[in-house]
Amino acid sequence: MGADPRFHPGPGALPLAAIAAAAGAETPADGARLFTGVAPLGSAGAGEVAFCEGRRHRAALAATGAGCVLVSAAEAAHVPASALALIVRSPWHGFAAVARLFHPVPAPRPGVHPSAVVAPDAEIGEGCEIGPLAVIGAGASIGAGSSIGAGCVIGPACVLGAGCVVHPHVSVSHALIGARVVLHPGARIGQEGFGFAPGPDGRFVTMPQLGRVILGDEVEVGANACVDRGAGQDTVIGTGTRIDNLVQVAHNVTIGAGSVIVALAGISGSASLGARVTVAGQAGVAGHHTVGDGARIGAQAGVMNDVPAGADVVGSPAWPARETFRAVAALRRLAQKRAEGAGGEG
Amino acid sequence: MGADPRFHPGPGALPLAAIAAAAGAETPADGARLFTGVAPLGSAGAGEVAFCEGRRHRAALAATGAGCVLVSAAEAAHVPASALALIVRSPWHGFAAVARLFHPVPAPRPGVHPSAVVAPDAEIGEGCEIGPLAVIGAGASIGAGSSIGAGCVIGPACVLGAGCVVHPHVSVSHALIGARVVLHPGARIGQEGFGFAPGPDGRFVTMPQLGRVILGDEVEVGANACVDRGAGQDTVIGTGTRIDNLVQVAHNVTIGAGSVIVALAGISGSASLGARVTVAGQAGVAGHHTVGDGARIGAQAGVMNDVPAGADVVGSPAWPARETFRAVAALRRLAQKRAEGAGGEG
Amino acid sequence: MGADPRFHPGPGALPLAAIAAAAGAETPADGARLFTGVAPLGSAGAGEVAFCEGRRHRAALAATGAGCVLVSAAEAAHVPASALALIVRSPWHGFAAVARLFHPVPAPRPGVHPSAVVAPDAEIGEGCEIGPLAVIGAGASIGAGSSIGAGCVIGPACVLGAGCVVHPHVSVSHALIGARVVLHPGARIGQEGFGFAPGPDGRFVTMPQLGRVILGDEVEVGANACVDRGAGQDTVIGTGTRIDNLVQVAHNVTIGAGSVIVALAGISGSASLGARVTVAGQAGVAGHHTVGDGARIGAQAGVMNDVPAGADVVGSPAWPARETFRAVAALRRLAQKRAEGAGGEG
Repeated sequence: MGADPRFHPGPGALPLAAIAAAAGAETPADGARLFTGVAPLGSAGAGEVAFCEGRRHRAALAATGAGCVLVSAAEAAHVPASALALIVRSPWHGFAAVARLFHPVPAPRPGVHPSAVVAPDAEIGEGCEIGPLAVIGAGASIGAGSSIGAGCVIGPACVLGAGCVVHPHVSVSHALIGARVVLHPGARIGQEGFGFAPGPDGRFVTMPQLGRVILGDEVEVGANACVDRGAGQDTVIGTGTRIDNLVQVAHNVTIGAGSVIVALAGISGSASLGARVTVAGQAGVAGHHTVGDGARIGAQAGVMNDVPAGADVVGSPAWPARETFRAVAALRRLAQKRAEGAGGEG
Repeated sequence: MGADPRFHPGPGALPLAAIAAAAGAETPADGARLFTGVAPLGSAGAGEVAFCEGRRHRAALAATGAGCVLVSAAEAAHVPASALALIVRSPWHGFAAVARLFHPVPAPRPGVHPSAVVAPDAEIGEGCEIGPLAVIGAGASIGAGSSIGAGCVIGPACVLGAGCVVHPHVSVSHALIGARVVLHPGARIGQEGFGFAPGPDGRFVTMPQLGRVILGDEVEVGANACVDRGAGQDTVIGTGTRIDNLVQVAHNVTIGAGSVIVALAGISGSASLGARVTVAGQAGVAGHHTVGDGARIGAQAGVMNDVPAGADVVGSPAWPARETFRAVAALRRLAQKRAEGAGGEG
Repeated sequence: MGADPRFHPGPGALPLAAIAAAAGAETPADGARLFTGVAPLGSAGAGEVAFCEGRRHRAALAATGAGCVLVSAAEAAHVPASALALIVRSPWHGFAAVARLFHPVPAPRPGVHPSAVVAPDAEIGEGCEIGPLAVIGAGASIGAGSSIGAGCVIGPACVLGAGCVVHPHVSVSHALIGARVVLHPGARIGQEGFGFAPGPDGRFVTMPQLGRVILGDEVEVGANACVDRGAGQDTVIGTGTRIDNLVQVAHNVTIGAGSVIVALAGISGSASLGARVTVAGQAGVAGHHTVGDGARIGAQAGVMNDVPAGADVVGSPAWPARETFRAVAALRRLAQKRAEGAGGEG
């Protein structure tokens, strides 16, 4: 069963030749044969295109009802007779391209909805769609071909590059945003960071948060995730970095290009993450620490020291993964011994 | 002190007979006696109804100023002379019913607020209340008697069943929602999941997220919680399941009926949870794992393996609770020995 | 480089005498010399004011390009010749005051935006700014000089004190809010708590949530953070307490004055925290537990017992910090021994 056309419209049936071209496969003999869409291997029908990620899915491949399957050369022999095999280098990437062919990203419908509140001096680029009840502040600038969703609030003087997609209920303030950035519903960009200290009378004094948020091109920020603006320097997220739902990025944080921060992770104030870093779900990085390029922080890990480039850390406090797994195994054995009455640890 | 009538209006004073009937207690002699509301045992006055959950609260029961107390038969002898005892099988359930009698769920006030933006072809069921500045997309369908709060955005083609309550600032897209579903403020339903991989040039390529969110009848989703739509298959949440605030449910997740996911928990992509599962606060379930019916995942646990039905796991990585508690005790002893200079572990 | 004037406007250049007065330093000889703004030590220019927090930053102080530096007496000798030293008791506090002088909190621009939906019987205090597309419910009361951001929804009968700042997309219901409270974008105040139990047929029965949220003066609640209203008693947050982004505060929680709850922390139902408590990022406090005045809960800690006043706990489950660090060290050694083949634990 393919995508629900109510939610995922597209051009309809497409010829095999176009599908093969998108997937990067050789054009098959029967290039005019039509397919209606894409679907998972387990539910695809004879008119649909599926893909097989690798040998782990061989049983599902053998049983598929798909009419066409994208496979690597290594798996081609396992495609059932009922399906046409398109051999590609990476079935995942081939499938992503074919899926996009059947279901292109909805283009903005240019225009400003009459219910939107747009400041007279805001610059709205050519071809932008400004949704119902969106608010665009004084002096803000929205790049050409961007789409601002229903109910968004873009603060004064904010700059968004071309081709951004801002989903409903996003708020942006004090921010300079690159091109083709995607902000998912309810993302919060540019609000005041958490900076204060007790005054002489014990009441908290706020440090004015005078920085900005700088998002590189193609950054994505998930639903209800938060990126606070800097206190003095800026909070900076590098090109292409992807931030999942409900992530907290505190003031002055810098994250390099191509990093991935998974849901419910928290990056504390002034932490500095390199490029191609992965922070898994619910992990945390304490303030002012550095995480080197390409490091991997495990799920629920608590980084309380600097992490070198390329390192793999897990646990709270986070240690190198191999040591931690060894410690967990040692602890497990210790507990088992006690349970057996060996009492061996003393 | 009972509920603040500014926030919790109701019919006012009610006769004891109606209260007893709602609670499931026998009608007492003085059925016409009036009570003005409900209150906690510790703060209720002579005109109010309280309840005693069990023997643990016996001291509070003895000291209560309530005029009427719902109790189990076992506690009835401990109700002070100043209070009338209504004996019920479950005081908690009896009290919930009586509280609802005094403070019914506010009925929708049928009508579409003039400031709402409703697509001409959206279907709004009979008796619906569409709040100020709500947006209802093209072809969406809202079931009879539903209430859509101020500032909500219901995306194109979404379907909500009858009697839903959608609180302010909720966004819904790509979703089919059952009857009597409750979405709390800022909940995010149906946005794009977190699915991508590096392309040949190192830049991330997005896998089109072509599924939907399917919420069963009586599902509840907490404030600022997120439920991403599926990538290929759907994200499905079974009947009556309750999700607390700030929970992340990733793409392709399935959760059975009657499960409970507590605040700040995260369910990663393609995880599959059975019915009547409990995931406590800040716990996480890693991608593609299975949690069997009735399993209990402890607070802050990190599930990195499949969990069998009925199991009780805690810790990160999560182990069976009994083993973990034993390990924690062993570790504590080990640390104490070292502190005492025994140095016993080697 | 100082603050971006597009986002952080201010009066422009100010004389040294005014700067010294704000910082609490003695008036220097050259009181008429003008400075244009504030900046971090590492990026400030000759026309800007910076500060040095302490000896740890001595190298940055020596290298600074700032024209004026706030320092403690102990560091004054290390200010380079190019900079004028203003000696203050606390450079942090002095800088905060000077930064505020250059960049005052934007005053509300009194008036109700024509697109706002304000109930006829709502009371809007003198000098309030009600932003575009805000909704103010029946009988709500907004204190003088408060600012309600774009797209906020303030529910019926809610009361906000004077001088509150409510940022965009906040929802408030069932709440009594003090003066000078700050609610950051997307904060959720007063929604229904997570209270239910299985009924006789297995379906969940909701306990009506009949309490309120009470926020003391100068409370701050972070972006997308949630504070649920009480079930019977109220949820109460004491004067000046600061709650960071994405924090969950469940029903019936009480938090004393001057406490700090960091991002992604969760305080479960009916927990009671004292004054000046710190709960670090991603930590959790289980339901019904008590945390004494001045206690410190470490990052990712899981409090599953009462914590005495002044205690310092870490880990999940949380123990006193000293014991936990000892246990972690012991475990690390145990794992290392095993790795070396000593097998010493049995």
